[in-house]
Amino acid sequence: MTPDTPPATRPLGVALIGYEFMGKAHSNAWRSVGSFFDVPATSMTVVVGRTPDAVAAAAARYGWAEWATDWREVITRDDIDIVDICAPGWLHAEIAIAALAAGKHVLVEKPLSNTLAESQAMVEAAATARARGVFSMIGFNYRRVPALELARQLIANGRLGTVRQVRACYLQDWLVDPATPMTWRLRAETAGSGALGDIASHAIDQVQFLLGDAVTDASGRLHTFVTEREGPDGPEPVTVDDAAWATLGLAGGAIASVEVSRVALGAKNSLRIEVYGSAGSLSFDLERLNELQFLDGTESVVTQGFRRILVTEPEHPFVGAWWPQGHVIGWEHSHTHQIRDFLVGIAESRPAEPSFEHGLAVQRVLAAIEESAAAGGARVAVCADRP
Amino acid sequence: MTPDTPPATRPLGVALIGYEFMGKAHSNAWRSVGSFFDVPATSMTVVVGRTPDAVAAAAARYGWAEWATDWREVITRDDIDIVDICAPGWLHAEIAIAALAAGKHVLVEKPLSNTLAESQAMVEAAATARARGVFSMIGFNYRRVPALELARQLIANGRLGTVRQVRACYLQDWLVDPATPMTWRLRAETAGSGALGDIASHAIDQVQFLLGDAVTDASGRLHTFVTEREGPDGPEPVTVDDAAWATLGLAGGAIASVEVSRVALGAKNSLRIEVYGSAGSLSFDLERLNELQFLDGTESVVTQGFRRILVTEPEHPFVGAWWPQGHVIGWEHSHTHQIRDFLVGIAESRPAEPSFEHGLAVQRVLAAIEESAAAGGARVAVCADRP
Amino acid sequence: MTPDTPPATRPLGVALIGYEFMGKAHSNAWRSVGSFFDVPATSMTVVVGRTPDAVAAAAARYGWAEWATDWREVITRDDIDIVDICAPGWLHAEIAIAALAAGKHVLVEKPLSNTLAESQAMVEAAATARARGVFSMIGFNYRRVPALELARQLIANGRLGTVRQVRACYLQDWLVDPATPMTWRLRAETAGSGALGDIASHAIDQVQFLLGDAVTDASGRLHTFVTEREGPDGPEPVTVDDAAWATLGLAGGAIASVEVSRVALGAKNSLRIEVYGSAGSLSFDLERLNELQFLDGTESVVTQGFRRILVTEPEHPFVGAWWPQGHVIGWEHSHTHQIRDFLVGIAESRPAEPSFEHGLAVQRVLAAIEESAAAGGARVAVCADRP
Amino acid sequence: MTPDTPPATRPLGVALIGYEFMGKAHSNAWRSVGSFFDVPATSMTVVVGRTPDAVAAAAARYGWAEWATDWREVITRDDIDIVDICAPGWLHAEIAIAALAAGKHVLVEKPLSNTLAESQAMVEAAATARARGVFSMIGFNYRRVPALELARQLIANGRLGTVRQVRACYLQDWLVDPATPMTWRLRAETAGSGALGDIASHAIDQVQFLLGDAVTDASGRLHTFVTEREGPDGPEPVTVDDAAWATLGLAGGAIASVEVSRVALGAKNSLRIEVYGSAGSLSFDLERLNELQFLDGTESVVTQGFRRILVTEPEHPFVGAWWPQGHVIGWEHSHTHQIRDFLVGIAESRPAEPSFEHGLAVQRVLAAIEESAAAGGARVAVCADRP
Repeated sequence: MTPDTPPATRPLGVALIGYEFMGKAHSNAWRSVGSFFDVPATSMTVVVGRTPDAVAAAAARYGWAEWATDWREVITRDDIDIVDICAPGWLHAEIAIAALAAGKHVLVEKPLSNTLAESQAMVEAAATARARGVFSMIGFNYRRVPALELARQLIANGRLGTVRQVRACYLQDWLVDPATPMTWRLRAETAGSGALGDIASHAIDQVQFLLGDAVTDASGRLHTFVTEREGPDGPEPVTVDDAAWATLGLAGGAIASVEVSRVALGAKNSLRIEVYGSAGSLSFDLERLNELQFLDGTESVVTQGFRRILVTEPEHPFVGAWWPQGHVIGWEHSHTHQIRDFLVGIAESRPAEPSFEHGLAVQRVLAAIEESAAAGGARVAVCADRP
Repeated sequence: MTPDTPPATRPLGVALIGYEFMGKAHSNAWRSVGSFFDVPATSMTVVVGRTPDAVAAAAARYGWAEWATDWREVITRDDIDIVDICAPGWLHAEIAIAALAAGKHVLVEKPLSNTLAESQAMVEAAATARARGVFSMIGFNYRRVPALELARQLIANGRLGTVRQVRACYLQDWLVDPATPMTWRLRAETAGSGALGDIASHAIDQVQFLLGDAVTDASGRLHTFVTEREGPDGPEPVTVDDAAWATLGLAGGAIASVEVSRVALGAKNSLRIEVYGSAGSLSFDLERLNELQFLDGTESVVTQGFRRILVTEPEHPFVGAWWPQGHVIGWEHSHTHQIRDFLVGIAESRPAEPSFEHGLAVQRVLAAIEESAAAGGARVAVCADRP
Repeated sequence: MTPDTPPATRPLGVALIGYEFMGKAHSNAWRSVGSFFDVPATSMTVVVGRTPDAVAAAAARYGWAEWATDWREVITRDDIDIVDICAPGWLHAEIAIAALAAGKHVLVEKPLSNTLAESQAMVEAAATARARGVFSMIGFNYRRVPALELARQLIANGRLGTVRQVRACYLQDWLVDPATPMTWRLRAETAGSGALGDIASHAIDQVQFLLGDAVTDASGRLHTFVTEREGPDGPEPVTVDDAAWATLGLAGGAIASVEVSRVALGAKNSLRIEVYGSAGSLSFDLERLNELQFLDGTESVVTQGFRRILVTEPEHPFVGAWWPQGHVIGWEHSHTHQIRDFLVGIAESRPAEPSFEHGLAVQRVLAAIEESAAAGGARVAVCADRP
Repeated sequence: MTPDTPPATRPLGVALIGYEFMGKAHSNAWRSVGSFFDVPATSMTVVVGRTPDAVAAAAARYGWAEWATDWREVITRDDIDIVDICAPGWLHAEIAIAALAAGKHVLVEKPLSNTLAESQAMVEAAATARARGVFSMIGFNYRRVPALELARQLIANGRLGTVRQVRACYLQDWLVDPATPMTWRLRAETAGSGALGDIASHAIDQVQFLLGDAVTDASGRLHTFVTEREGPDGPEPVTVDDAAWATLGLAGGAIASVEVSRVALGAKNSLRIEVYGSAGSLSFDLERLNELQFLDGTESVVTQGFRRILVTEPEHPFVGAWWPQGHVIGWEHSHTHQIRDFLVGIAESRPAEPSFEHGLAVQRVLAAIEESAAAGGARVAVCADRP
C-alpha cells in the first residue's frame, strides 16, 4: 500500500541556490530532516546554478526535482515557499532581498554578505518581511551542534556562574604548503578576507551565542604567512590573512580571545571553545563534536574535574531524534538541525534564530577587528545593538 | 528542467523487512547512498512490518513508496531486486532463504540467525544463489567505519608486523539499574544470549576482519549481575548474560581477549579495539569513530608514540565521498558504506563481504565461548574453516 | 647556626639490602621522606650488596653512610632498626625471617618470595614478630599512588555503589623485539614466572586493595609469543610467559579481568584499571598517574561523564605534603609514601598495610592462574582467607 | 665500610636564601641531584631566612647543615661557593650583585628582579663576573622539563620546518573565588604585576627558548575580573591583573599568542604550548608534563596525526638518569635538572643557560605588553637584543 495521503496543504516548495560544498550539505539536510524530525512536509523542488551540466548533475545526485540557471525566475515561482541561498557571498544580498520581497522564507549561508552595507539592507528587508510573516535565518550551523546547544543551556541555566574568560580558536591547515596555488579565496577583492571572515566568524558567533551577550570592543591582528602563491599567470600576492587574532570585550564583562589559522598543521577543522566562569567551565572541540567537557566548580574539589559528556542521550538537544545513546552523529547533522528549527519556526509563525541581525552583529565584530589590526592593534568599539 | 532521464535499466527495487532501530538506519542509508557514492540507481519500493499503522507511518517517514504486512508476497515481486532483512533474528533464516530462492539479493542484519543450524542452511542457500549471480551479505556494519577499514589496511600492508595480542571490548551501560524492567532481550528463549550475542559478535567479527584470520579456540566466562528483574507478572529471572569474557586463539598465532558488558556504567557504545604487533600497534574506540590511534614501531623511539589519525582525509576509505577534511561523520555512515559496497558488488557481479559464511564463523566462536563457559572456562576448539 | 639537637631518641637506623632499580627507588624515598612528611627520624645507615665496588659506589651515590657485603652481619647490628629488602626474590624469605627474628622491622619488595611455601613461612614469622611490636610490610607501592588511594576511598565510601566489573591490565613492551637477548628473567628456574608474577601481581593486588575484597576463583591463560631468544650459548627456549590473561571472581560478587603483556608495543608502563559499579565508575592509567577518571552515576544523565580529576589538591591523599595544586608528582613518590606509612606505623606501634598476608594472597591468585592455565583454562578456586 | 674518601677538592658549598615554596623545591633538588646525575659534589651548607624559628625548622627539614638570618654575612663566607636566591623578587638584585661581586656563582629564581633597571644592573654584574669565571643562571625551570627540551631539539633540528604560529597559555584558578582574601600578590606595589609577571613570564621564556628566537613586538591586554577583595582592614582594590593576553611578533617571522589567567576554573597549573610549523607541529601541557604531542607533516596524510610521545625513554633528555621507561617523573624534577646543568656548567667553566640576559629579555617583553595594554592594545616594539 502507499502511505496515507499527506494533509491537504501541499508540501513547502524549496529552491536551493548553489550546489557546491554548502549546497551538498543543505541538500542532504532537506532530504533527511523529515525522516527524523516532526517538521512540515517539504518538496525539494528546484536547484539553481550557473552551469547547466553541473547543476543538472547536482539535481540528479542530490534529489532535486528540477534544475534551473536563473535564480530570478525561480524565486518568484508560486510553488516555491523557501529560498535557501548557498551561492557565493557577493550574491547573498541581491537574492535574499528579492526573495523576501517575493514573500519567500529565506535561509542564507554565512557570511550574511560581503559588506556591512549590504548586510544592513538585508537586515532591513528581513525586518519588513518578518512583519508580514515571512522569515529568514542565517546558517551559523554550529549553533545546532548538540554539544554547543547544551553548552549554551548550561551557561543560561547558571551552571557556570558569571562567565569571565572565553578562549575560542578555529584552526585548519589547508594552506600549510606554500606550493598550494592561488585561488579566489586568497584575493581580497573576491574573498573579502581570509581566515578572519571564513572561520573567525563562526568562533565569534559562538561567543555571542553561548554567552547570550554582545561584543563591545575588539583588538585585532592579521597576518599572512605565505605572502605569494603561484597563480595562473605566475606568482601572485596573497591579499588576505592566513591567520588572525583578537581579544573581544563583551557587554556583560567577559573577555574572549579568538585565534584562527589556515596554517595550523595537524588541525583539520578544530573549532575549540573554552568557557571559564565563576562556578563552572566548559571545553569543546569540533573535531570531537559529540563531546562536551564540563567542570562543575560547586562540587568538592576532591572529585572535581572536567567531565567528558558524550552528548548522545535522548535528554540532550536534537540527538533523541537520531540513534540510541553512544551512537555518535557527524558534522552534517548540524545542518539538518538547522533546517529543522527553520521549518518549525515557519510552522509556528515565528522566526528561528540566528537572524540576519545575528549575522550583521558578527560582521560588525569582524570589521572592528580589521580596523584595529590596520591601526596596529588598538582597541576599537563595536556597536553593541543586540539582535 | 527535470534531470536527465535515467539510463534505460530501471532502478533496483528494494524491499525492507523491519522498520525499528535497524530499519531506520538502513532506510537512511538507502535514501542517502546515491547522493554520495556512484552506485546503481535504487528505488525504495516497499517496507514490510506486521503492524499496519506502524509500518505505514514508517513508510511515510523514511521515504518508502509502499508498505506491506506480508513479507512472503513482497519478496517474489518482480519489481523487487533486493531484500534487506532487519526483522528479528528468528525470522532471518526463513526470509533470507526464500528471498535468495526467489532470485533476490539479500542483505541481512546480524546475527545471521539465532541457531547454528539455521545459519548453516543460510550459508548453503547463499552459496547456491551466488553460483547464479545472486548475492548476499551480513550487516557487520563496523567493517565500514573508515577508521576500522584503515586499521585493516595497515595490518594487511604489514605496518604492524606480526600481530600478537588483540584486546577488544564492547561496553554499554543500559542495564546498570536493577529497576530497569524485564524485556524479551533478557530471556534466553527469545534472545538466545545477552551481551555475548548482541555485542561480542561485533567484537569477534572485528578481530577476524582486522587480522584476516580465524579464531581456532576459545575460553569463556558469562555472568549475570542482576539476576532478577521486574516483569509484567512480577519478578522474573534474567536468563541471559549481562557480561561476557573470552580469550581467543587465532590460526596465525595471535591471542585476542574480548570483554563485553551491559552494566559498564559510563560506557555508552564503546567498542574498543587494541592491536599489538611486532612492528606497530593500533587503538580504536567507537565512541570516537573518526579517530584511529596508530603507533609505528619502526620509528626512532625518541619520536615514537600513538598518533591520533583523524580519519577524514580524502585519501581515507569512504570519507572522500562526504565532506572536506576534519568534518567528521557519524555512526549511521557505516550503514551507508555497507550498502554502497553491497550495491557495487551487485553492479560488478561479485559478492561483497562479509558473507553469510563470515556470519556463521562468528556464531561458531560465540557457541564455543558458551560451551567453554558452561564447562567452567576450559578451552574449546573452534572449527577454523575460513569463509 | 646548626639546627636544634634532635630529640634524645636516636634516629631509626635503616639497612638496605640491594641497590639496583628498586634499591635506587627506596634510597630516594628514605632520603626524601623526612623533608616532606612528619615521620620518625631515620638514618641511612648501611647498604648491602654482593659486589664491593658496586655497592660502595651505590652507597656514595645514594647517600648511605656505610656499605657492606654480608647481610647476615648487618641485620643483627644494634644500630639497625629497619631492614629494607630489595634483593632478588629468592633471597626474600631467608633475609626477612632472620631480620624479623632479630627484632628488626622489615619492608620487603614484591614479590613476597618465589614460592608459596616460603611466603607462608614469612607470614608466620611476621605474625610472631607483630605480636612483639616488630612490623613488616610488602612493597606494593602502587597502593600509595594518590589517585589509586583516592579511588579506594571513593569505593569504600560507596560512591560506586556495588562494584560489578573490574578491568585491569598492565602492559609493557620491552620484549617486543625478538632480537632482545635471553636473561635470567626469561628462565622459569630463576624468575618463577614472566609477566604474570612481575606485573600481574600489581594488578591483582590493586583489585583486592581497591575493592577491599578477596579473589575466590581464577581462570587463566599464559602465552609466550617469542619462544626462543639468543642466550650466551646460542638460541635458548624462553620458559616464562610474555603475556597472561585471567578472569577473577571476588567474594563480594564482582568479576575482574586481568591482562598483562611485555610485548604490547607502545605501552611503556601502563597499569590501567577500570572499575564499574552500580552507582559510579573509575578509570586510571599509571602512565598518567596524577589523574583519576571518575563518573558519578547519581547525577543527571545530561551532565554525566567521566571527569578527569587531577589528583594534586591538598585535600587528596599524600599530595598536600608536596607542591601546590597542579604541580604533578612522579612514579617515585609512591615509594616515598610507602615508607612514610611504614614509618608512621612504627611510630604508632601498629602495622602498616600491605602486610605479608597481602603478599601471600596475591601469590595464591597467581598460583591459581597458573594452575588454571596449565589445565586449559578451567576455573580454579582460590583460598579466600583475607589478610 | 664507609664510602671512598671523596676527591681532594671539597664539595661546593651552597647557601640558599629563602625557604618557602621555591626554597623547598630547590632544597629537594640540591639534596637529590648527586644521586642521579654526575655533578660536582656539593654541600648543603646554610639556608638563610628572616625568621629564626622558621628558618631553623626549614634547615632541619630540608637538610641544610646550618641556618642564618643575615644573607650579607653568608654570601661572603669562604665555605660558600654558590648562592641560590629564592627570596622575594625585590631582593634579587641586591643579593645577586653582591654575591657575584664576592665571587660566588649565583642561581636566581625568576623573575630576575622587579624592575628593568635592577635587571639591567644584574646583567652587567653577571657579565663582569662571567669574565672572571663566576657564573649565573635564572630559574626558568620549565626549560628542563624533558618534553620541552625535546620540543626545542625537534624544532632546532628542523622537524617543524619554519615555525609560524605559537599558541601559549598558562591557566590557573586559585583566584576564582571572590571571597579569596587580599594578599601582597594582588597589590601592584609589592607584586609588580599579577598573572602577567608570575606566569606569562614562563610562557614567554618558553616561546623564545623553543624557537631560539626573540620577540620584537607585542600587543597586550590586561584585566582584573575581581576588582576588590577583603583585606585586613576591609575591602581593598586589587591592583594587579587576574588575566593577560598578548600577541608577540618574533624576529624570525613567527607570531605567538599568549594568554594567562588565575581565574580559569579547572585549570590547575596548565602551561600549554602549541607550535605550528611548515613541516611539523607540537603540543604540550604542563599538567601532563611527561608527554609531548608531535605531528610529522612530512608523512603520508593517511597515517599522519599528533603522536603522544611519552618522554621517558633513556634516549630522551634527562630522563635516562631516573627510572626505566614509562616510569613518569614530576614537576620537581625540572628543578633537579636545572641544578644539574648549573653544576655541570661550573665544572666545565662555562655558563649554563638561561642567563640573566634571558631573564631581562623576558622582562622587556612583559614591559612592552604592559605598555601596549596601557595604550589600548597598540603594538609596541621590543628591543630584540638576543642574550
